[in-house]
Amino acid sequence: MAPPEGLPKMEYRFLGRSGLQVSAISLGGWLTYGGHVENENTFACMKAAYDVGINFFDCAEGYSGGESERVMGEAIKKFKWKRNDLVVSTKIYWGAANGENPVNNVGLSRKHIVEGVNASLERLDLDYVDLIYAHRPDRNTPIEETVRAFNHIIDTGKAFYWGTSEWDADEIATAWRVADKLVGPIMEQPCYNMLARDKVEKEFAHLYEEIGLGLTTFSPLKQGFLTGKYNDGIPSGSRLGSGSDDAFIKMMNKKVGDESWKKDIANVKKLAPIAEKLGITQATLAYAWVLSNKNVSSAITGASRPEQVYESVKAFDAVKKLTPEVLKEIDDVLGNKPAAFTRRF
Amino acid sequence: MAPPEGLPKMEYRFLGRSGLQVSAISLGGWLTYGGHVENENTFACMKAAYDVGINFFDCAEGYSGGESERVMGEAIKKFKWKRNDLVVSTKIYWGAANGENPVNNVGLSRKHIVEGVNASLERLDLDYVDLIYAHRPDRNTPIEETVRAFNHIIDTGKAFYWGTSEWDADEIATAWRVADKLVGPIMEQPCYNMLARDKVEKEFAHLYEEIGLGLTTFSPLKQGFLTGKYNDGIPSGSRLGSGSDDAFIKMMNKKVGDESWKKDIANVKKLAPIAEKLGITQATLAYAWVLSNKNVSSAITGASRPEQVYESVKAFDAVKKLTPEVLKEIDDVLGNKPAAFTRRF
Amino acid sequence: MAPPEGLPKMEYRFLGRSGLQVSAISLGGWLTYGGHVENENTFACMKAAYDVGINFFDCAEGYSGGESERVMGEAIKKFKWKRNDLVVSTKIYWGAANGENPVNNVGLSRKHIVEGVNASLERLDLDYVDLIYAHRPDRNTPIEETVRAFNHIIDTGKAFYWGTSEWDADEIATAWRVADKLVGPIMEQPCYNMLARDKVEKEFAHLYEEIGLGLTTFSPLKQGFLTGKYNDGIPSGSRLGSGSDDAFIKMMNKKVGDESWKKDIANVKKLAPIAEKLGITQATLAYAWVLSNKNVSSAITGASRPEQVYESVKAFDAVKKLTPEVLKEIDDVLGNKPAAFTRRF
Amino acid sequence: MAPPEGLPKMEYRFLGRSGLQVSAISLGGWLTYGGHVENENTFACMKAAYDVGINFFDCAEGYSGGESERVMGEAIKKFKWKRNDLVVSTKIYWGAANGENPVNNVGLSRKHIVEGVNASLERLDLDYVDLIYAHRPDRNTPIEETVRAFNHIIDTGKAFYWGTSEWDADEIATAWRVADKLVGPIMEQPCYNMLARDKVEKEFAHLYEEIGLGLTTFSPLKQGFLTGKYNDGIPSGSRLGSGSDDAFIKMMNKKVGDESWKKDIANVKKLAPIAEKLGITQATLAYAWVLSNKNVSSAITGASRPEQVYESVKAFDAVKKLTPEVLKEIDDVLGNKPAAFTRRF
Repeated sequence: MAPPEGLPKMEYRFLGRSGLQVSAISLGGWLTYGGHVENENTFACMKAAYDVGINFFDCAEGYSGGESERVMGEAIKKFKWKRNDLVVSTKIYWGAANGENPVNNVGLSRKHIVEGVNASLERLDLDYVDLIYAHRPDRNTPIEETVRAFNHIIDTGKAFYWGTSEWDADEIATAWRVADKLVGPIMEQPCYNMLARDKVEKEFAHLYEEIGLGLTTFSPLKQGFLTGKYNDGIPSGSRLGSGSDDAFIKMMNKKVGDESWKKDIANVKKLAPIAEKLGITQATLAYAWVLSNKNVSSAITGASRPEQVYESVKAFDAVKKLTPEVLKEIDDVLGNKPAAFTRRF
Repeated sequence: MAPPEGLPKMEYRFLGRSGLQVSAISLGGWLTYGGHVENENTFACMKAAYDVGINFFDCAEGYSGGESERVMGEAIKKFKWKRNDLVVSTKIYWGAANGENPVNNVGLSRKHIVEGVNASLERLDLDYVDLIYAHRPDRNTPIEETVRAFNHIIDTGKAFYWGTSEWDADEIATAWRVADKLVGPIMEQPCYNMLARDKVEKEFAHLYEEIGLGLTTFSPLKQGFLTGKYNDGIPSGSRLGSGSDDAFIKMMNKKVGDESWKKDIANVKKLAPIAEKLGITQATLAYAWVLSNKNVSSAITGASRPEQVYESVKAFDAVKKLTPEVLKEIDDVLGNKPAAFTRRF
Repeated sequence: MAPPEGLPKMEYRFLGRSGLQVSAISLGGWLTYGGHVENENTFACMKAAYDVGINFFDCAEGYSGGESERVMGEAIKKFKWKRNDLVVSTKIYWGAANGENPVNNVGLSRKHIVEGVNASLERLDLDYVDLIYAHRPDRNTPIEETVRAFNHIIDTGKAFYWGTSEWDADEIATAWRVADKLVGPIMEQPCYNMLARDKVEKEFAHLYEEIGLGLTTFSPLKQGFLTGKYNDGIPSGSRLGSGSDDAFIKMMNKKVGDESWKKDIANVKKLAPIAEKLGITQATLAYAWVLSNKNVSSAITGASRPEQVYESVKAFDAVKKLTPEVLKEIDDVLGNKPAAFTRRF
Repeated sequence: MAPPEGLPKMEYRFLGRSGLQVSAISLGGWLTYGGHVENENTFACMKAAYDVGINFFDCAEGYSGGESERVMGEAIKKFKWKRNDLVVSTKIYWGAANGENPVNNVGLSRKHIVEGVNASLERLDLDYVDLIYAHRPDRNTPIEETVRAFNHIIDTGKAFYWGTSEWDADEIATAWRVADKLVGPIMEQPCYNMLARDKVEKEFAHLYEEIGLGLTTFSPLKQGFLTGKYNDGIPSGSRLGSGSDDAFIKMMNKKVGDESWKKDIANVKKLAPIAEKLGITQATLAYAWVLSNKNVSSAITGASRPEQVYESVKAFDAVKKLTPEVLKEIDDVLGNKPAAFTRRF
């Protein structure tokens, strides 16, 4: 089907302050291609567009659950258009719209930008798009992270230019202000539990605001101590106290019964009535206490049986029981609250 | 055929402030190789050049429609010259000279530099050239974009040095001044039509000059509203009003008949006499109005039938009918022209 | 085995100032997976974790000698989890814990970070991890080297974010302060022996502190001179004095017997009684003298027979014989100690 | 062959301000391996070194014409040593020592560093070396170019650290001072001949010092004009004046006989007696005149027959005939010497 006669000549415009020329009218796949429009019809429309001089075809990872990219990519191959004659775009943000889990498949984190672009290029069956858009602003991700991730996409040859969609003017201006520097560490993995607080609550206190440090803490139960299971001595069958030749177990065994051990046991015993009053186990109390610190991004737990996993998850219900009064009571019986620290919640 | 006796010894010179040595006489393929000179003769000339100590062979993507690169690359393989003994150059700008569409295959945009170099290396059958030239200045592309793109070529190992051809002194100096920084977004994709103006005309107003923001706008017809097709209620067979389970359609259906809907319909009706007076449909008026804003790089349209594509293109003819007087009339009947904005044409 | 009913919903938190979401409880392989926990049980625990919404699985190169990474990677494939739904971490520092030689397989040098990450990804059978940790601070490696190496890991797509474990607050702050700049040379390979001291002891003196210059020196024996083997003329069968057409031997032959040669022989003869007094050969004295300079990172020796290798190693025992008094005696008989230099030990 | 008993333990030292540990004694291949030492003996020495704890093996592209790298790489494979336990170095500068053409295969240009490292890694059969040295200072190459090229080697994973050999202290300090910025263009390709001088001699005059601009000029004969072949009209058989449909020829044909054409012919005729007096053809005069400008790195010539190549080379002999007096005579008869320009030789 040839275009009707007498149509005006397509106009090409430079895309902002760039050297790229886009047809002043372009064709997008939103709400149509890969969705309610049948593929044969999509092909016909794209061919009509190409024939009247449209060179810019607009798409997004979230259009029709990814099918829009797939059918538009198919058209490009079907008609054997030359890649250098086309300006193809796609957009990253709504990965969840194509059936992905919303956690980390939505927004503008480095993880989703990289994984999202890779998936889009695979659906389009292209080596690169010309334009890659941030489909919406993501107010949960630092603009610097997004700027750096899109530059990574450009540096690795997966796109030529990047842009935004539905961002505010000041967000676009901020993106331009972001400096070029090496990335510092964004997270730290310290030991953190009711018996080991200084590093997390005191030493790092200023870093949470200054550099936005995140924590992925380990040993929420202090190797089982905070469950109370050593309150009356080492139970039989425990790895601790066994003849294990694991270096860590051996090191721990040397500490059994020493001053520090006795002091810890005394403290753990003092926590028992608090747990009982709240109607939870001492293990749950220990998990919930760690989770109640909002600077903790994730409390890493170990498990050698699935039940231990389930047990740890119960802590979420217990967090709300840790009122300011209960937290103060814990601080008082343990006597180890670092001086300069102020809880942020 | 051996060189005649008694020829002077070739002189080698450092190429400007670099560590690369080029023979003070070199051999270029302009107007000759791949064109009116037969390949056997090209081979003979190149061998003669190599035998007298010429190590620099100069080429360009635009010489003889790319055939110059092809035959010179063939000579290199034919004579089994070692790659490290040769200084091979090519030049990017005149991609259209080898039969490519002039849109985006001419000049110094990142797109053409990357695509052009890839195509040149393929024709030369080399992994890299020693020198890559900007064959002319491109006054439509920011020098920074060009500088960054040639650095990308060097970083990815496709060339060792880059230079210019027929640039002005101040353009060369500017290229050196360009700072090294991350690339910000060069385009934004907002919703823009006669009923949604604030973001494009007011909020972004300062960004067009400041950062050279380009716009690829969507919804020129506000989902069909501006065609006037809902002026007398929802027509039967329309997706709007149907039982479609598409999330967007469902969201739209909730708005049918509400206050905002009524206000829009009233405005669209007021536009009908203007379209009629100009002898165009309301849809064409809506398209032409968007295109008349020169900050719009491209108006993205959707189409589920080829006819819709053709319809949108007719807007180019209508743009000239939108005189300042007509635009003012539209502003007056809609009453939604943002305060601080001054049209730039 | 399905999770018990009534468990609370998993909570997801942003990892510090990033756009990445991690489950507020995560599962780590420390002391368990790949070690005393059987693989079937590891799989069951990981599945339980996944089923309750845990998305963050924490590992390290040093957990269970690398087996922890192997079994956790196996679980990911076994359950066919989508890569983009997972946040996988590993940590670099304790390469020696999985049986590697401690030299260069421990700590945070660029070498171990790059080699360690590559080995971890191979064990995990993944293209990238989401998080890569510096498992401990490494006070023997400049923080800048570590920062640059982790950025290299991110730039090459092998990780999305990097962090620390058990670092001090000021070390984390220092990591952020480190500037982005090109790497200068960190080592120099000069000639250095008892007869050639100026460059190493005088010219470079300020660079050891300023830029931390390391030295890998050559010619500890000055081509055999300092062994004393030319004290009584060139022995028969020596390459020196032979008709060898090696360019270097030819150059040396020209010097045989000239003024500089005579002066060197005189000096070497004066060293003989010192070596004798210490009960070592002149060769060992020469090696030990070079090694006694702590700015020498490595003294490069040549060997055409294994015995020569063993001979050179004996120098370590002789270094302690080079007391300040002996070193002064050597300085006095040679009379070539550079003026401005102060020995740093 | 096992090491003798009682040898001291190998000592490991950090390499300058880095996290890399090198054995304080190392084994180098200079003057031995791949050369006069037989391979079986090289293997025995390297095994002895490894057995006594030497982890650092030192090599260079120029040792024994590349054979040193080949045999040392062979030993590494033969003994199945783990790559991460070794510190392997090589050095770039003396590519010509292994039989390569000295032009561009010696020194520290980006071209030789990249090509040299690639060739070394191929001979060693390794993916990377730990250390890469600049084997000597290269006073013909800007230190910045060398610094950038070694950083490119590190960024692309082909080495972990870079250093120098036999550089002066101030050269090492300079290397550290070199800033990190994008590379600007180092060469320009203008038209330059006796009839077209302004751009090269006037417009660019300040750039030769400021940014070290190099020139690769085209049209030394102004499309044959300066040979004098059009002095008496267009000769038959010439492409000029023919019905060729080449765009450039067509454009030229339009100019035949116009004012500018007549002026050029008049000037060319005035040059004839000068050429005659010097005993050279007008073509050779034109070439020699371009070459006499030391800012010209290379004069690009075209040739459709080998004889034309030989003809152009004869110009080197003629350059010395262009004394200041002759150059002034040319300036006078042409009357086109740009005002502000001062010849630099």
